[in-house]
Amino acid sequence: MGNLVYRRQFAIEWGHCDPAGIVFNSRFFEFFDWSAWLLFEKALGVRPAELGRTFGIVGIPLVDARARFLKPAKFNDLAEISSEVHEFRRSSFEVKHHISIGGELAVEGSETRVWAAQDPDNPVKLKGIPIPAEVMERFRV
Amino acid sequence: MGNLVYRRQFAIEWGHCDPAGIVFNSRFFEFFDWSAWLLFEKALGVRPAELGRTFGIVGIPLVDARARFLKPAKFNDLAEISSEVHEFRRSSFEVKHHISIGGELAVEGSETRVWAAQDPDNPVKLKGIPIPAEVMERFRV
Amino acid sequence: MGNLVYRRQFAIEWGHCDPAGIVFNSRFFEFFDWSAWLLFEKALGVRPAELGRTFGIVGIPLVDARARFLKPAKFNDLAEISSEVHEFRRSSFEVKHHISIGGELAVEGSETRVWAAQDPDNPVKLKGIPIPAEVMERFRV
Amino acid sequence: MGNLVYRRQFAIEWGHCDPAGIVFNSRFFEFFDWSAWLLFEKALGVRPAELGRTFGIVGIPLVDARARFLKPAKFNDLAEISSEVHEFRRSSFEVKHHISIGGELAVEGSETRVWAAQDPDNPVKLKGIPIPAEVMERFRV
Repeated sequence: MGNLVYRRQFAIEWGHCDPAGIVFNSRFFEFFDWSAWLLFEKALGVRPAELGRTFGIVGIPLVDARARFLKPAKFNDLAEISSEVHEFRRSSFEVKHHISIGGELAVEGSETRVWAAQDPDNPVKLKGIPIPAEVMERFRV
Repeated sequence: MGNLVYRRQFAIEWGHCDPAGIVFNSRFFEFFDWSAWLLFEKALGVRPAELGRTFGIVGIPLVDARARFLKPAKFNDLAEISSEVHEFRRSSFEVKHHISIGGELAVEGSETRVWAAQDPDNPVKLKGIPIPAEVMERFRV
Repeated sequence: MGNLVYRRQFAIEWGHCDPAGIVFNSRFFEFFDWSAWLLFEKALGVRPAELGRTFGIVGIPLVDARARFLKPAKFNDLAEISSEVHEFRRSSFEVKHHISIGGELAVEGSETRVWAAQDPDNPVKLKGIPIPAEVMERFRV
Repeated sequence: MGNLVYRRQFAIEWGHCDPAGIVFNSRFFEFFDWSAWLLFEKALGVRPAELGRTFGIVGIPLVDARARFLKPAKFNDLAEISSEVHEFRRSSFEVKHHISIGGELAVEGSETRVWAAQDPDNPVKLKGIPIPAEVMERFRV
């Protein structure tokens, strides 16, 4: 058994790049975010916009994001990103992302997200709630 | 009498620029949008987030946006943007934006926005409603 | 004979959308820009990053961009964009973009771009030069 | 003696926010990047675009970026960001960023950047070089 991995390819666009001709750092966090949603769609069989309603949560808000930039990604490069849940904790989980270009690892990322419902004591706040076991199982293959 | 003008200055950031070293076109539409909100705040004395509630509208959605790029804006340039409502129509209005760098016009922009409420026949849709005369007057000085 | 059309599909991502739950306007100009590059790649058989070198130009800078927003694009929608050169002039051309969602036209866009070389009188400036007839022919099918 | 701190205030714009009405995570990395440039301008008395030429480097590329999201930043909030070099190593350094809203810490960020020159063995690559002592001193007050 291992982790379910979601992979996609995308081109590095002109508008992703900065005056050094390489992807501006904030863009990688956009790539991570969208892959996290797609990983959840693949695992749970639910379109991203339906995720909250289906599982009785408000969403999966991000509480920590990180990237290590190992090699630059340049205009016109073809990038491959693979994403998996590296670890489930009680009410949060860590998504790992790897972006490769031409078969070489270019960026490593991680996101910590919370399985979040409205806080019953304060409805404008969110609160982590336990992640159901059947959710976690769907991320294993 | 003339139009109320909202002016602000901002720096051209590294992350605004593309591999040609100049501002990527989509960023100008971010600059226009935010200046439109600030113009409304100045004219109506209401913070952007309160605009809808105060005037019984859902918002001022954009239906047309345009920019003409006359001179490039480069990393580290200091830009000045001035914005005004150029024309009010019954339920829509046109905001004109001018961005200058070093005193020279670099970009001209225009946005057409609608004074919009929920459509009573279909609550998930928006519908333009007449702009109150007292709103229009606040954009004249 | 008609215009060569470049089509692609893409998902509306969480990060594309604003607090109204619809795509923030500047994002459409990113979608247009990348489709313009891909249209050129399809027509000319040259990857975007090679375009300038292959044809002796510096690039195809944008001098005018416009969008009309007809229907909102929402998180998770599947968008289809089709792009074509609507008109070639001596040293500039107009690209038309249509974005549909669920078969309905959501956004119409146009970009005016220049076939640009360095200005021989001022190497830091760009100057439109005549578009070769063989380039124009490649955009007809 | 302590670290030189660069502070600036900025508004949370409509276009910064996602369908949850809070700042989309990638935007914070834009805020961090620009504050890093401005901190360097304040410390070294050199405009960002001149930094490389003045100090014989190609730039200060990012090799690691991280953010912890403690409280959401919402449309129309006034954010204050303070930035400082937390640690200098031989050829790299760590910039710490703190973003507060209404006096409460909302986001903590850190960036690791390299003091980088062209690699003499491979001119298309960058290589960290020792940070001059007189540069480091300028970040202490």
